[in-house]
Amino acid sequence: MADSPNCDLKSLSPLQLFERVTEQGEKVRALKAGKAPKDEIDAAVRMLLSLKLSYKTTTGQDYQAGLPPKDLVLINNGPTKEEDEDLVDPWNVQTSNAKGVDYDKLIVRFGSSKIDTDLINRIERAIGQKPHHFLRRGIFFSHRDMDQVLDAYENKKPFYLYTGRGPSSQAMHVGHLIPFMFTKWLQEVFDVPLVIQLTDDEKYLWKDMTIEKAYEYARENAKDIIACGFDINKTFIFSDLDYLGTSAGFYKNIVKVQKHVTFNQVKGIFGFTDSDCIGKISFPAIQAAPSFSSSFPQIFNGKENIQCLIPCAIDQDPYFRMTRDVAPRIGQPKPALLHSVFFPALQGAQTKMSASDPNSSIFLTDTAKQIKTKINKHAFSGGRDTIEEHRKYGGNCDVDVSIMYLTFFLEDDDRLEQLKQAYTSGELLTGELKKVLIETMQPLVAAHQERRKQVTDEIVKQFMTPRKLAFEF
Amino acid sequence: MADSPNCDLKSLSPLQLFERVTEQGEKVRALKAGKAPKDEIDAAVRMLLSLKLSYKTTTGQDYQAGLPPKDLVLINNGPTKEEDEDLVDPWNVQTSNAKGVDYDKLIVRFGSSKIDTDLINRIERAIGQKPHHFLRRGIFFSHRDMDQVLDAYENKKPFYLYTGRGPSSQAMHVGHLIPFMFTKWLQEVFDVPLVIQLTDDEKYLWKDMTIEKAYEYARENAKDIIACGFDINKTFIFSDLDYLGTSAGFYKNIVKVQKHVTFNQVKGIFGFTDSDCIGKISFPAIQAAPSFSSSFPQIFNGKENIQCLIPCAIDQDPYFRMTRDVAPRIGQPKPALLHSVFFPALQGAQTKMSASDPNSSIFLTDTAKQIKTKINKHAFSGGRDTIEEHRKYGGNCDVDVSIMYLTFFLEDDDRLEQLKQAYTSGELLTGELKKVLIETMQPLVAAHQERRKQVTDEIVKQFMTPRKLAFEF
Repeated sequence: MADSPNCDLKSLSPLQLFERVTEQGEKVRALKAGKAPKDEIDAAVRMLLSLKLSYKTTTGQDYQAGLPPKDLVLINNGPTKEEDEDLVDPWNVQTSNAKGVDYDKLIVRFGSSKIDTDLINRIERAIGQKPHHFLRRGIFFSHRDMDQVLDAYENKKPFYLYTGRGPSSQAMHVGHLIPFMFTKWLQEVFDVPLVIQLTDDEKYLWKDMTIEKAYEYARENAKDIIACGFDINKTFIFSDLDYLGTSAGFYKNIVKVQKHVTFNQVKGIFGFTDSDCIGKISFPAIQAAPSFSSSFPQIFNGKENIQCLIPCAIDQDPYFRMTRDVAPRIGQPKPALLHSVFFPALQGAQTKMSASDPNSSIFLTDTAKQIKTKINKHAFSGGRDTIEEHRKYGGNCDVDVSIMYLTFFLEDDDRLEQLKQAYTSGELLTGELKKVLIETMQPLVAAHQERRKQVTDEIVKQFMTPRKLAFEF
Repeated sequence: MADSPNCDLKSLSPLQLFERVTEQGEKVRALKAGKAPKDEIDAAVRMLLSLKLSYKTTTGQDYQAGLPPKDLVLINNGPTKEEDEDLVDPWNVQTSNAKGVDYDKLIVRFGSSKIDTDLINRIERAIGQKPHHFLRRGIFFSHRDMDQVLDAYENKKPFYLYTGRGPSSQAMHVGHLIPFMFTKWLQEVFDVPLVIQLTDDEKYLWKDMTIEKAYEYARENAKDIIACGFDINKTFIFSDLDYLGTSAGFYKNIVKVQKHVTFNQVKGIFGFTDSDCIGKISFPAIQAAPSFSSSFPQIFNGKENIQCLIPCAIDQDPYFRMTRDVAPRIGQPKPALLHSVFFPALQGAQTKMSASDPNSSIFLTDTAKQIKTKINKHAFSGGRDTIEEHRKYGGNCDVDVSIMYLTFFLEDDDRLEQLKQAYTSGELLTGELKKVLIETMQPLVAAHQERRKQVTDEIVKQFMTPRKLAFEF
């Protein structure tokens, strides 16, 4: 806290308040031990009592020396977990449950809010149309401050969307499209600017990869993202390695965040250790900074106070918990969030998919034949061992990957419901269900490939050029 | 080491080799404990023996578990020190000796080389003129690889100069001019490009200061630096806050350094703790990156291999020890260095001067009258208590601040020698000596003020605009 001794206590996080109380306690002890003048000791004690009161008001707990605030579980739950809990952080998703991660528990642990029927209805009223099936089916299931975004929208105040991708390889799979498909829908229904960060610097820092390779992947991935159909006049895609060197506004926000986050905090949030390189340790600020509109002076005309909404998979939440903790202390609005569930591997929902295992998912470069083979061979089935048993007892939709994939990609609600019922009753066999999935995925991937072919290097360059978008600020 | 498991062992620093041996030892134990196949254990043991051999070749010591290499004192001596040693790091200079820091000991501790008569003579031969009095008088007293720079120069290979300043306030004192006066001389005699870094981001991170203020100080300090007489066609001055957002080359080098330095290392070198903000922890990479010519593509035409020479005060050496450790691992040449002693406070050589105490030195804004008063009132004297004693026993030049200042600023060697002899013999009184200092400093400061007046905002802007300089690469 040496940086801002007089800062407003209300703007401090529970951990910072805890540290302030501890420091002040040490100061009082030192003054007493050093037989300081009585009025000096009295002033220090008054300050200590006032800090303890602030601590109690903020955390609802009495200060106890050596015991950090319980709220910290909300900040610190990235890498630590209870024995039976799912592990969810930006680099790991692990669960022992075939149904996948327990998302209701995750909401409680992360301290976010469930996207409930009330919120979905409110979105429907605001946009005047049926919400996306990702919302209706709980694929985007959790949020932070989405009500505030809707308040702003209803009051005709501007906001913008921010999402991103770590370009770890050229190979993107259909699961990688989820946040982009949803973001595209949000952009269309709300008609707002969108910024997409490609964290090629992160991939360089984390992987055994050259800077040139990371940047090449960023541009290749940009093609797949653009092929989702984003409006070039409303969307700015940027590589960190590129944009950081072209925007003083971006770097200034990064350094502001870096001043207000300690190693202790990133250790708690991301599980970094003393052996990690200093690039990893300071990287979270680079993912945080696009949450502030002043990182894009060319789009927002230098305006600082424009609300940001971030659609992302829930594993990215640690970055934005940190961002929201810092935002008020650097005079910026907290970004709002919409969190999605994870996309399951073909082999089952126990893990997130891996771009390095070609059989773990359907890739955007797969041929119709590859899609058919992969689904028939690898898609984990909730069906019974024999046709007789299946007809008699029915299949288990909760663990069946074909049903899961159709929940993501089959837009027709009635058809999906029919399939689930028929599979559960045993009327529909696994082979027949897989056929439906194959027939859903083949044209979807083929259409993506067709659109991607039309994305030239020139178009990528245009999307990635810092410029004014079709909005006035 | 997860980043580059196959990297060449020769490119590893002693500490990294130590860590590799330790890791491999653990691996062997784990394999044995897990009753792994014999050939797997054998392979791991062979690797361990090979690593131990590399360790011995590199460090000259046998590997001992838990005992990091002794060479580490060269890397780790920033914040730690023996009881009777001087404390020297980028934020602290402390000595209990009135003569100032023991620079010979510092050379041994830092592992640099003394600038001896041979080197000074070689410089004289190379440039064909008398070396600067800062060299002749041991003000620049230590170096790293200056021979290599001279080799390059003699073989008509290009090199460039890099120096800098942390703009902590508007007030610069005469001591701040030392590196710039010397750098200007180097630039003139070698006719090479010069880059000057203003670390306004560092000051924002370390001080209770806004970004705007730090940037304002950077531009104000640039005026004093320009007033030293640098050639606008051969010099690029940059603020980090500004330039980082205009040069992708600079950021790429920063992130390369950040990938190759761990928190453990900066903890050892700079004494950072877990409570430090992540901005401080990653900052050393920002001071390192200008050592690589590819940070300035506009000047060096994107060339990566141009030798850098850094004139700076010895307290900045920890940054460049780190830089030199990293350089070969990112395929860059190690920067060479020329180290200066510290400029003493008027009150004596026990401390470095402080810009926050107006009486601690002569400031560049002082009037002739202020200079006179300050020297008469505050300049620590090596004279005797009474005129009689002084005449009889003589003054002590080793602790007399007037003599020290004249050593920096009085160019006439004969005159300085006369003064020292007369003072030592008791012939010259303290008041008379101070008069000589006053008459030296008054015109020097007045001339600086006159030149500074002519440095307009437009000129500052030109110096700080990324551009090609008057050299072909």
